[in-house]
Amino acid sequence: MICGSALRKGVSPLKKKVRVGVIGAGAMGLHHSGSLAHRIQGAELVSVADPDPEAAERAAALAPGAVATADHHALLADAAIDAVVIAAPNDTHARLIEEASGAGKHVFCEKPLALDLPSADAALAVVADSGVKLQVGFQRRFDPGFRRARSIIQEGDLGAVELIVSTTRDPKPPSLDFMRRSGGLFMDTLIHDLDSARFLSGLEAAEVYATASTMFLPEGARGRFVDTAVTSLRLETGALAVITNSLRAAHGYEVAAEALGEKGKVTVGQEQQTGVRRYRADGVWNDHVYHFLDRFRDAYLVELAHFVECVSLDRQPEVSGEDGRAALVLALLAARSFQEGRPVSVDEAGDG
Amino acid sequence: MICGSALRKGVSPLKKKVRVGVIGAGAMGLHHSGSLAHRIQGAELVSVADPDPEAAERAAALAPGAVATADHHALLADAAIDAVVIAAPNDTHARLIEEASGAGKHVFCEKPLALDLPSADAALAVVADSGVKLQVGFQRRFDPGFRRARSIIQEGDLGAVELIVSTTRDPKPPSLDFMRRSGGLFMDTLIHDLDSARFLSGLEAAEVYATASTMFLPEGARGRFVDTAVTSLRLETGALAVITNSLRAAHGYEVAAEALGEKGKVTVGQEQQTGVRRYRADGVWNDHVYHFLDRFRDAYLVELAHFVECVSLDRQPEVSGEDGRAALVLALLAARSFQEGRPVSVDEAGDG
Amino acid sequence: MICGSALRKGVSPLKKKVRVGVIGAGAMGLHHSGSLAHRIQGAELVSVADPDPEAAERAAALAPGAVATADHHALLADAAIDAVVIAAPNDTHARLIEEASGAGKHVFCEKPLALDLPSADAALAVVADSGVKLQVGFQRRFDPGFRRARSIIQEGDLGAVELIVSTTRDPKPPSLDFMRRSGGLFMDTLIHDLDSARFLSGLEAAEVYATASTMFLPEGARGRFVDTAVTSLRLETGALAVITNSLRAAHGYEVAAEALGEKGKVTVGQEQQTGVRRYRADGVWNDHVYHFLDRFRDAYLVELAHFVECVSLDRQPEVSGEDGRAALVLALLAARSFQEGRPVSVDEAGDG
Amino acid sequence: MICGSALRKGVSPLKKKVRVGVIGAGAMGLHHSGSLAHRIQGAELVSVADPDPEAAERAAALAPGAVATADHHALLADAAIDAVVIAAPNDTHARLIEEASGAGKHVFCEKPLALDLPSADAALAVVADSGVKLQVGFQRRFDPGFRRARSIIQEGDLGAVELIVSTTRDPKPPSLDFMRRSGGLFMDTLIHDLDSARFLSGLEAAEVYATASTMFLPEGARGRFVDTAVTSLRLETGALAVITNSLRAAHGYEVAAEALGEKGKVTVGQEQQTGVRRYRADGVWNDHVYHFLDRFRDAYLVELAHFVECVSLDRQPEVSGEDGRAALVLALLAARSFQEGRPVSVDEAGDG
Repeated sequence: MICGSALRKGVSPLKKKVRVGVIGAGAMGLHHSGSLAHRIQGAELVSVADPDPEAAERAAALAPGAVATADHHALLADAAIDAVVIAAPNDTHARLIEEASGAGKHVFCEKPLALDLPSADAALAVVADSGVKLQVGFQRRFDPGFRRARSIIQEGDLGAVELIVSTTRDPKPPSLDFMRRSGGLFMDTLIHDLDSARFLSGLEAAEVYATASTMFLPEGARGRFVDTAVTSLRLETGALAVITNSLRAAHGYEVAAEALGEKGKVTVGQEQQTGVRRYRADGVWNDHVYHFLDRFRDAYLVELAHFVECVSLDRQPEVSGEDGRAALVLALLAARSFQEGRPVSVDEAGDG
Repeated sequence: MICGSALRKGVSPLKKKVRVGVIGAGAMGLHHSGSLAHRIQGAELVSVADPDPEAAERAAALAPGAVATADHHALLADAAIDAVVIAAPNDTHARLIEEASGAGKHVFCEKPLALDLPSADAALAVVADSGVKLQVGFQRRFDPGFRRARSIIQEGDLGAVELIVSTTRDPKPPSLDFMRRSGGLFMDTLIHDLDSARFLSGLEAAEVYATASTMFLPEGARGRFVDTAVTSLRLETGALAVITNSLRAAHGYEVAAEALGEKGKVTVGQEQQTGVRRYRADGVWNDHVYHFLDRFRDAYLVELAHFVECVSLDRQPEVSGEDGRAALVLALLAARSFQEGRPVSVDEAGDG
Repeated sequence: MICGSALRKGVSPLKKKVRVGVIGAGAMGLHHSGSLAHRIQGAELVSVADPDPEAAERAAALAPGAVATADHHALLADAAIDAVVIAAPNDTHARLIEEASGAGKHVFCEKPLALDLPSADAALAVVADSGVKLQVGFQRRFDPGFRRARSIIQEGDLGAVELIVSTTRDPKPPSLDFMRRSGGLFMDTLIHDLDSARFLSGLEAAEVYATASTMFLPEGARGRFVDTAVTSLRLETGALAVITNSLRAAHGYEVAAEALGEKGKVTVGQEQQTGVRRYRADGVWNDHVYHFLDRFRDAYLVELAHFVECVSLDRQPEVSGEDGRAALVLALLAARSFQEGRPVSVDEAGDG
Repeated sequence: MICGSALRKGVSPLKKKVRVGVIGAGAMGLHHSGSLAHRIQGAELVSVADPDPEAAERAAALAPGAVATADHHALLADAAIDAVVIAAPNDTHARLIEEASGAGKHVFCEKPLALDLPSADAALAVVADSGVKLQVGFQRRFDPGFRRARSIIQEGDLGAVELIVSTTRDPKPPSLDFMRRSGGLFMDTLIHDLDSARFLSGLEAAEVYATASTMFLPEGARGRFVDTAVTSLRLETGALAVITNSLRAAHGYEVAAEALGEKGKVTVGQEQQTGVRRYRADGVWNDHVYHFLDRFRDAYLVELAHFVECVSLDRQPEVSGEDGRAALVLALLAARSFQEGRPVSVDEAGDG
């Protein structure tokens, strides 16, 4: 098991450092660059590509000798690079996976795999042909809490799973520009919950129903983007799952999951930043984690270390391209269910 | 506000005791009888009716001078009785309300008001004609936690409500016999959440979708009763609500609610029986409230005291027949949505 | 075990009601009067004595037929009274126990038993001679949390107790007048923790050290009363106990206990009034129990019901006069330790 | 403020890397070596000294080019080294501080500064003469929770501090050999609480009383080492502080603090490893942090980064030699109080 305490130990040094290039130097790309530069011993950050030269420079500066480029093709053409981390906008993921795996690079790609199924399948086909490794960035699978919850379930401590409840709420909505490229709530936020529902329950979905609203996004979003959604799934055993998402939570970033079974339930959801509590005449106060990088700091590091280790030791990553595809299918069905106002069967996934 | 501390104070003595008869002496009828006999100063328990003479005797024995009868008609014919508490099986509620209000008795009736809409409307018509008071037993409206949450919302501390999440899980499923008379999960359990979603948000629903499964009920229930359900509502403002229900929770009785709005969220859900925590090598342990009479002990008392006070002071109870009807409509639509596998508009309420 | 759920059940009716008189109609006397009048089936409130006729009237008015008197001698002379509840100022306890037991009444007396040891011993001697039952009002012994913690310890789940930490903090200091009669923090507040340390650990103390300060009491209290204290005990096995007390806690009433042993620890300390939590941009908020009658509502009722039952069934109450004396000895030693600035052995208890 | 989120940001690059040698390669020395090698950008790990060559090698291997030595004099003689981290046994601290500062190296030294006052003063005199910087390893001062609590107090949100309660419990006692060199509970464990009492309250102590027991250490420890202690302090304003320590906590590592003041209280004590909770028929379970490196992972990193930054920018570290001395004085007085069975004034610090 990969757990918090593993972070304390000196990880056994790998034979040879994995040389990594990062494509996309926004918040996540910068964060991953820092991990590769300083915190993952088996990795070496050698190049960062971003159309914004300043962003590329800022990330590359984290490692001595790393180079910045505005052109990711140059990065992919660099024979010294073993693997790439794709942290560019969602609408580029599938194409970049194709290009990178076509160039023989192992690929770590942020979720989602793609914004439509044909693109995803085309990308996965190139990955399969080229024989490179592909890991999709569902970092919750590396969070000590989610891993523990899954172990409890997989070991049968709950008995059969009957109900999953999953929650993701972002502190603030992204810009409309960001949403245009990310695919919006269903593609960018819900997809995490869809993956963790599969991860926790070990079950596949049979039917999806989503209802959603635009409650607070600015005028320009109306009719195009939703900010609040409830998605329910019927799983293959008849078990149910329900996911609530919101793009705004004034109190901070909120991720929680609950699994109910025959013998009780298990929940995940550590939300405090510190253990401080303030007791005053008007009640008791504690803080709340606000930023996703605070909530999942360990998970982001461990998932990337896992990828680097898999590349180094020639193992298959725990989160496969198929996992990325399965979550994508459900996200697309949720979007369709919402548009058509009806529950949609997974058998309809290839349609439309 | 009716709150916990109110229970400490000597309530101002009312002019004249309200003489109450209880119809139905099962668990709730017995509990209400005890409250009327000992804990509500303005009330006097004068009669208990139940087809099971032992049950009637046991409840009547709680108050000196109270009489037991197997025939509720006798109770309703007693001119000394001002008001009745209906705690008989759900499938008798509507008829009993009709009979009691027809006899000029004020009525406190456990939820649901009825198992179908025509019966509910017929009962409400008699109530209106006879001018008696009617209160429906949505006790959560008298729980200090739910009341506090509602105040926070109504005072605008959350801004506009965007999402309600409500949870009710019973420790163990009832018998098939009980379910036959209660109407099952949608009529007997979900209806509480439907009422509290209305109570907390102050909003009406526009559309209902329910998905449900029979995961653990015995063979004979298959095809007739569900034990696990997810119901989502679109509210009149576009806000969403989602309710999860289960008829089994090995860890105990579980009621929780969450309301998310512009300025944050509020949650209700005190679940511990005592404040004891046990710390051992394998982790930290605390108990969980197991029985609904433990979770809502205060609320059951306060709702009944409220009814007695309303009768005594000639005021309208806070939970009206219309509230009972509104929750019933949504429960019926949830059942239809499940049966027909599609979202159902509240405009369809009169149909089918 | 006497536990919360016991309160739900119809207690088996006792043969004959125990007729009780209450001496002292302040906050506690009024509360106990209400319990006797309405909530303890085996008891009948027949008389209330208080020098303040209005206070006596208010309490007596809770039960039909109960009489009020300014003269407790009249109450004690009433042959119809079986038992008395002493809720008068602390400096009258020992004398009232003597008088009441001398008059053949069973006695429930609020803590402390007395303000000095000779008075306590004189009172206990009369109790022993007259053969009446005596229960001292250490209500924490009837709190479901404290009882559960003690069971865990007594059943060996912690192994040998090594450390007890006990906390009592009152929301606001009482008036100087009240303190003059109550004996102050050591006699009136600490004594609860001394008793619960004995109750939880099952151990006696060997040595006491107390340090204390006057941090916020008004000018007139300086040099006479303390408001903040830390008392440490060495127990007979070498285990340690420490108690912190404060007469002010802006956030509300606070009672907590912790016992550490070989196999872990157990804590008690339910502090919330409701389960409501409010999440906002500045953090997460919940309430805190403010009043001791809210925190110990069940315990106050159960202890009195226990006393009534012991009288009715001719059993010895769980909290004996010896328990009252043992806590008093330690409170007196704590006061002496503080005055003399040194640890004091319990062997010095008879001195000075 | 140095807070959790600071760890997310790219720290502004310092002019020149601070070259650091580590003396002592046990658990803490190894951990600090890893931080210097990988996680603190402004530092370079150049040498590790430990009498055990394997330990020195293991730590040195964390940084390319770092050398291992069995002789710390060689390390101190290396002109390329700017600063040293002393993580050797407690009984060597004072001497090593003297040697290192005498050799012109800046010093980060684990607590305690020394095991007796004359040694501490001699070491501080050399530090003062040589003009190097000295930081003592009270890492709690860099924990986000403790820092937040202190800010709340220092900003006056509590009003005047009236009471501090501090808790440190280690999961398992160290070996007797370790205790011989560490000075035992008072020198090695209590000293953390003494420092954090000063840090949180901003107050100095006037009087110390300690009582302690040997409850579970092996036979050979009796009469020489204690495992359970309660230490109370009277602070300069009359405010009180109390500290409980245990060398065993089967449930894991436990650090908590509470400060009570006029306007309420603040507590620190985040104890869970993950946010997972398991609900079963026998209650609710969560984990507990077990290892001090898990509890204070951030704090250990941030304190060392602070030291490196102070060296680089020529600033005085936040935790001074005087802070180290003040805590040492109180630990020595606690030990004396325990041995002599009486409260000891800080004015006696120079004696005996």
